[in-house]
Amino acid sequence: MISLTALDGIPEVVPGDDLAALIVAALAAADIGLTDDDVLVVTQKVVSKAEGRVVELTSVTPREEARAWAAKWGKDARQVELVLQESVEVLRMARGGLIISRTRTGLVCANAGVDMSNVGGGAEAATLLPVDPDASARALRAGLRERTGAAPGIVISDSFGRPWRNGIVNVAIGCAGLEPLVDLRGTPDADGRVMSATVIAVADELASAADLAGGKVARRPVVLVRGWERGAREAAAGDGQGDGPGAAALVMDRALDLFP
Amino acid sequence: MISLTALDGIPEVVPGDDLAALIVAALAAADIGLTDDDVLVVTQKVVSKAEGRVVELTSVTPREEARAWAAKWGKDARQVELVLQESVEVLRMARGGLIISRTRTGLVCANAGVDMSNVGGGAEAATLLPVDPDASARALRAGLRERTGAAPGIVISDSFGRPWRNGIVNVAIGCAGLEPLVDLRGTPDADGRVMSATVIAVADELASAADLAGGKVARRPVVLVRGWERGAREAAAGDGQGDGPGAAALVMDRALDLFP
Repeated sequence: MISLTALDGIPEVVPGDDLAALIVAALAAADIGLTDDDVLVVTQKVVSKAEGRVVELTSVTPREEARAWAAKWGKDARQVELVLQESVEVLRMARGGLIISRTRTGLVCANAGVDMSNVGGGAEAATLLPVDPDASARALRAGLRERTGAAPGIVISDSFGRPWRNGIVNVAIGCAGLEPLVDLRGTPDADGRVMSATVIAVADELASAADLAGGKVARRPVVLVRGWERGAREAAAGDGQGDGPGAAALVMDRALDLFP
Repeated sequence: MISLTALDGIPEVVPGDDLAALIVAALAAADIGLTDDDVLVVTQKVVSKAEGRVVELTSVTPREEARAWAAKWGKDARQVELVLQESVEVLRMARGGLIISRTRTGLVCANAGVDMSNVGGGAEAATLLPVDPDASARALRAGLRERTGAAPGIVISDSFGRPWRNGIVNVAIGCAGLEPLVDLRGTPDADGRVMSATVIAVADELASAADLAGGKVARRPVVLVRGWERGAREAAAGDGQGDGPGAAALVMDRALDLFP
């Protein structure tokens, strides 16, 4: 049995906050003792805020392309400018002003993860994705280990749209302390047949599961996943910390990309 | 707190089996009383088997295109033939023999959901997706209601690849008794800002969550989700049964499709 528990009592996060300390306090208030087998799923938004990845829009000067696109679709040109700055490649500029692009870490998503909603301090600021979400996950894991002695798996989640399907789901943009992909190729299945192509993106599934328990509306950005049998202990040991390859392993090699 | 519990004791499913009866027996053995607030996530494979969506390959005569594609990539031409039969449109035929196509119900996935693995009775058979997975979900829900008095939410899950990301995740190909999309547009978020574009594909997140507890290798095709706050009772009441719109609502209108 796996349990998904949203932590209460994480306060509004502001730049410079120590996220590990906030989480340890919330765990203590709930009388939960962290273990190496747990996984904590943390939304991108609080990680970005803690890391100061917040931009006041008054500081942004939009380029001509951003102004034209914003005017066409009734967007804020400064936000469009930030999206373009955060992108290494634009895949589609489409209906409603949506920009689908690739970020520096290889994520393909809407508006490069630049978000106007839910940024403390009003509508005149935007959050950007963490510069290196895997590094953010490793740092959070190290911070928790330092404070509690336990090093859980960490997933940093964000909500992504998908081609061909309505709605958004949470996926893993960063992780540490767990293998993001579980490779069952060569494993006999329940009928004894060897499965030929079954690599499961468990980090993404953890992010989606946590979203059911946490959710966008309530201020519950941290969810504890307990009882998952492929837990933190399975992480690659080679790096000495058991952090594993991170969510970078979820980014498809562009040579394999069928939908450029 | 949400719990995810894989049911033990579901036997090998064969055509004609009564899936509701098998699930009721497994719940009884685990001493679990079903409620309207529960959600059961069931893998496509057992639904397809129970519905007789199993094809012996000796009965399949591949067309020329199927033979050519199979020869090029070392595939079984009869399986390729089934993929083409199950497709209304082929989006890509690609490396390794992969076919990405659209099924009759609008799902875009690899090999139209035709699967050689895990079909009881050896390698010479394939399973096809249920003809109407939403109808399958409604029928299972009705069968459970009839036997137990409780009508939980039902999700029928299958594992899909995604553009730009490695690995597969489970998504909902059918559902009943829950809203597959939760629309937060117009809801104030934790900062009081109104979220402009936040429709969450909770049925897909339920499918992914369940996969963590069930899993492909173990024969645990049914996972009980308990404690989800947006449970079965939120389903659309308009149809008299509370079945809701089904996973058909997750299929994006092709006019909005940016990646044809």
